[in-house]
Amino acid sequence: MPFAERLRRAQTASGSLVCVGLDPDPAKLPPDLLDERAALLAFNRRIIDATAAVAAAYKPQIAFYSALGKENELVDSIRYIRERAPHALVILDSKRGDIGNTAEAYAKEAFERYGADAVTVNPYMGEDSVRPFLARPDRGAIVLCRTSNPGAGDFQDLLIDGLPLYRRVAERADRHWNQLRNLMLVVGATYPAEMAQLRRAHPTLPFLVPGIGAQGGDLASTLTAGLDADGDGLLINSSRGIIYAGGGAAESIRAAALELHRQINLGRPGRRAGT
Amino acid sequence: MPFAERLRRAQTASGSLVCVGLDPDPAKLPPDLLDERAALLAFNRRIIDATAAVAAAYKPQIAFYSALGKENELVDSIRYIRERAPHALVILDSKRGDIGNTAEAYAKEAFERYGADAVTVNPYMGEDSVRPFLARPDRGAIVLCRTSNPGAGDFQDLLIDGLPLYRRVAERADRHWNQLRNLMLVVGATYPAEMAQLRRAHPTLPFLVPGIGAQGGDLASTLTAGLDADGDGLLINSSRGIIYAGGGAAESIRAAALELHRQINLGRPGRRAGT
Repeated sequence: MPFAERLRRAQTASGSLVCVGLDPDPAKLPPDLLDERAALLAFNRRIIDATAAVAAAYKPQIAFYSALGKENELVDSIRYIRERAPHALVILDSKRGDIGNTAEAYAKEAFERYGADAVTVNPYMGEDSVRPFLARPDRGAIVLCRTSNPGAGDFQDLLIDGLPLYRRVAERADRHWNQLRNLMLVVGATYPAEMAQLRRAHPTLPFLVPGIGAQGGDLASTLTAGLDADGDGLLINSSRGIIYAGGGAAESIRAAALELHRQINLGRPGRRAGT
Repeated sequence: MPFAERLRRAQTASGSLVCVGLDPDPAKLPPDLLDERAALLAFNRRIIDATAAVAAAYKPQIAFYSALGKENELVDSIRYIRERAPHALVILDSKRGDIGNTAEAYAKEAFERYGADAVTVNPYMGEDSVRPFLARPDRGAIVLCRTSNPGAGDFQDLLIDGLPLYRRVAERADRHWNQLRNLMLVVGATYPAEMAQLRRAHPTLPFLVPGIGAQGGDLASTLTAGLDADGDGLLINSSRGIIYAGGGAAESIRAAALELHRQINLGRPGRRAGT
């Protein structure tokens, strides 16, 4: 199934634009899981069980696994997503980008080793560093465009003939790299004005939106700025705001995900809240 | 020992500017190693044995290990470098870059899990995405500046008030991020004119230079463009040109590394070839 169709189905089946970030910081694990042999996996299973009904996607951040040599727990977590939430997309957040033969190896890591549906990629090295991630019609590449972090503007906002770099990245990605319609952009919730400009310039390109919650992004502004004409076009990620709710207790996680889902759908034309 | 001193000692002890890239493509392993249980490690041990005398640094590209789930062979390869070439730097080529708490996890991956001396990082996300890699005075961050690949110019050459993006990256890195003198730049051998501009603008900043050999970079032009006033300031990487020499036979690897070393020192003022 082509990636764009897979994305649409994930959103339709869940009735949701929520993406749950699986970023298990070992210093913040729920106390009752600290003695587990595979604590990251146990925590992820809890999160997946609690959120499967309202998650259109899951986004594990690979750094939290690779820092500890726990790649196997990432593999097992993704397997668990496939069992419990077969409709959901799995986005490997690894922000890869390298020369051709190395990018091929990274694409193999994301799509074969982990079986991800999509992977985040960094555009700084240009087209040949991104192409290998776009070669599979059923898998997507999500290109960093305007990120959510404090230093995002250091280079992304620099003006090139009057247009900031992040707009140049979006232009090139949309016009030249997206033949298979399997490309998305990372656009941070912390910069709604920039998101609005990107939506006007790219009315049909889907955005992955980090920055809600712990990073301070405002949901209402994000929806106003980023929804497409059909009230779709976004996957809105929350990691810390969901997974550490109530200290990481299952019921708190479930409630936090449901509340985000409800708030998002309140802001989408034609959607009923909580459905 | 501060990173800058560690770099200087690695170059002095080896009398060399050679960096050997440990990028073991499983499709190109020497035939006699195909049946080894840990074939990547066996190949790396052969390469390290053959090149220890003339390598100032080793640069494993993590993608070739992580694509196959062979992180343990990378750990063991780095341990073997420490035994056989204790003077040499280990550069983890992983081109990481992410928001603060994630960048911390990636720094932990590079410096604690793998015990690398330096790590390549991508500047697109700005200062806070690079800072965690610069926080340890004895470890270095090597910032992508002007890369060696065909698409490098897609964004890196875009002009901002008359100066290309890669020059803006170098400026900010040199002026604002390098308080501990533990920052280097990645500058590709395939673009000697750009390298010469960078050297003029940043006379003392060390460059890691990929692109010699398989990628087509010319060594003489690189030396002319990139050496600093003392005939230092570069680590010149060769991966495929060394490790697949003669099909990956030890003697061919040794000869290829020695020849690169000799050619480099012929072009350095005051160095005797082959020493």
